[in-house]
Amino acid sequence: MARNFGKIKISDYARLSINPLRKITQEQKIDPNPAKRSITLQLGDPTIFGNFPPPVALISALSNAVVHDKFPYNISYGKFEARQAVAEYSKHQGEISPDDVILSSGCSHALEMTVLTLVQPGENVLIPRPSYNYKTWIDGMKIETKAYNLDPEKSWDIDLVQMESLIDDKTRAIIINNPGNPCGNCFSKEHILEIIALAERRQLPIVADEIYEHFVFPGIEYHSISSLSKNVPVLTCSGLSKRFLVPGIRMGWIIVHDRNGVLDEVKQGLRNVSARILGPNSTVQYALPDILQNTPQRFFVNKMMKISYNADLAYELLSKIPGLKPIKPRGSMYMMIQIELDKFPEFQSCLEFTQQLIREQSVLVFPGHPCFNYPGFMRIVLTVTDGMIKESCRRLKEFCETHAKL
Amino acid sequence: MARNFGKIKISDYARLSINPLRKITQEQKIDPNPAKRSITLQLGDPTIFGNFPPPVALISALSNAVVHDKFPYNISYGKFEARQAVAEYSKHQGEISPDDVILSSGCSHALEMTVLTLVQPGENVLIPRPSYNYKTWIDGMKIETKAYNLDPEKSWDIDLVQMESLIDDKTRAIIINNPGNPCGNCFSKEHILEIIALAERRQLPIVADEIYEHFVFPGIEYHSISSLSKNVPVLTCSGLSKRFLVPGIRMGWIIVHDRNGVLDEVKQGLRNVSARILGPNSTVQYALPDILQNTPQRFFVNKMMKISYNADLAYELLSKIPGLKPIKPRGSMYMMIQIELDKFPEFQSCLEFTQQLIREQSVLVFPGHPCFNYPGFMRIVLTVTDGMIKESCRRLKEFCETHAKL
Repeated sequence: MARNFGKIKISDYARLSINPLRKITQEQKIDPNPAKRSITLQLGDPTIFGNFPPPVALISALSNAVVHDKFPYNISYGKFEARQAVAEYSKHQGEISPDDVILSSGCSHALEMTVLTLVQPGENVLIPRPSYNYKTWIDGMKIETKAYNLDPEKSWDIDLVQMESLIDDKTRAIIINNPGNPCGNCFSKEHILEIIALAERRQLPIVADEIYEHFVFPGIEYHSISSLSKNVPVLTCSGLSKRFLVPGIRMGWIIVHDRNGVLDEVKQGLRNVSARILGPNSTVQYALPDILQNTPQRFFVNKMMKISYNADLAYELLSKIPGLKPIKPRGSMYMMIQIELDKFPEFQSCLEFTQQLIREQSVLVFPGHPCFNYPGFMRIVLTVTDGMIKESCRRLKEFCETHAKL
Repeated sequence: MARNFGKIKISDYARLSINPLRKITQEQKIDPNPAKRSITLQLGDPTIFGNFPPPVALISALSNAVVHDKFPYNISYGKFEARQAVAEYSKHQGEISPDDVILSSGCSHALEMTVLTLVQPGENVLIPRPSYNYKTWIDGMKIETKAYNLDPEKSWDIDLVQMESLIDDKTRAIIINNPGNPCGNCFSKEHILEIIALAERRQLPIVADEIYEHFVFPGIEYHSISSLSKNVPVLTCSGLSKRFLVPGIRMGWIIVHDRNGVLDEVKQGLRNVSARILGPNSTVQYALPDILQNTPQRFFVNKMMKISYNADLAYELLSKIPGLKPIKPRGSMYMMIQIELDKFPEFQSCLEFTQQLIREQSVLVFPGHPCFNYPGFMRIVLTVTDGMIKESCRRLKEFCETHAKL
């Protein structure tokens, strides 16, 4: 006796695992202007245009690993040699043993594991605004996010008074992203010490999203949060994706910076969680010591010089466009640009602005909302070619001159 | 004003993400007998002893991919060419479009994504007993598991009457593992049709864990569940790990076998969930079409002949040991062995039996409990060398003869 199935429903977990950036790039149906070649300044993927190739040492290390790796199950939180290499590579963060390292399938996975280990459904965690898509892993777990403000007038420093006002008895951690996406913030030593003092006063561990570690422009100093923390436990998440220009490699890690032995249970919890999907690809684990030890410093220096050049170029060109106000970044690989929407009465939102920009000028950028919880802005990536920066700024100028009512 | 942090607590999610197999292999502190070389028949990892090398075509495909892949972010559920290759490779399951395929970081991840998409906290899902460690992903989500029985007297067929008695208005799916771990079951066409009829009567989708697809011994026929289902929607999970003997590669997939358009929301939900950690390693995705198309059939035939030989050998030797009762497998790469505990009064449980087996004989096996929710049994893997099968059976005989009170 056959019966018809009704539609199968899905869980809130699946319904709420929304990655707004992926949603736009995978599902956006807006056609660019066929008369103009598309310029995409959307995803933070430096591999698209061939101008930021990965380190030669990384290719060699992987080629060697493919032949020698046996493709075994490793310990789910990572094979010892790989964790040891991460500990050594990360010593600017403080003293680290291989035992403090948990490998993951990319930094997104590292952050997911960390937050879901520290916070229960019904509790909350502080995240920045604007922010990267932390909510993708958090909303589906019925964990609350509370957004603290970064101030574009102060190089995107945190509004610490407002941040502290968000904390309640259900707050379990503070996520800090530095150097940051989408803002390009890089906090000074003094500001980091203020953040740590707040975390200590409120007894909250810090989740340091440092996937852009060392990613700063000339003249800017980078300090890892854990290196400045005496008493506040810090869980630092990073990986290969951005610094080595290989986002598809999916190799990330968590470093557990305990202070006074308060993270034993957390370390075990993270190891438990790592056993859910049994760790990252074994070949990349095999290659990791080679990659981390043999990539020459000049690779990183060259890369940052190019990004810094693009940042200066874009800032200069955008500053001259009526109705736009770029915020100068200090690091990472993005720039936020304020859209003075009162000057563009045709557009109700930055989303409408950026959608029309595609239709007319074939320039693709991410709107501040819904991508970063920050209406009235747009983000561009700085890892495109300088020619693309120039051409996209030229088109933005044309677009703004067409639509601005000054 | 510094204050001391208390211990940082962890979430139930982290506390309950227990993988019992990993717990034993990573944390078990029992020393083997130093006079005897250890023989480990524990993890289902065929790479350990060098007797089951991966396909040459796989190494070539990966070597080529390392040089040509740009390591980009792909669409989070997998790049088109890789999904297309999986659709073609899996056509024995029915008609599949690339659009029906979601790539994952191994089959564990595929199963996690599928169950967490179909089932809410507070609802339940049916799993087999004995079973692989499905609870690792499920318990921490406060989803209930209800275990249906496999019958060792009937080649591990499902007790369908008992299975149906478990279903209530909060049941959302049935997980079927065929060919199966730890039992080595391979259901007949008739039995699969009975399972499908039950699912149809109770309007439940089937999650088919077919990571051991085609993994059957000579004379046994394998049928994928979806190939026999007219009206019941099936979500089939598989991957490279077992069939291609590369568990560390972490490449798995879900195939959405919709029936009458009831899985639209589920497909979107799975894509949402895939965006949490942004898909598997890009290089393996790049290599996937080559791997699936160019691995010769004789690779699989040779592998199954060796495993089948080991199964027959182990079955014959174990059948003669007092107090042990091996259950003949029909496929996969494991054998379950009943321990007649009433004949071993020293041991309260199969766990104690297997722990003492390590201390005296340096033979490592997984106890039925806590590993598979099946007290009174132990599991051995069949991908070791035939010499290790012989030697471990010899030691098991010595052990049983020492301890049995017949």
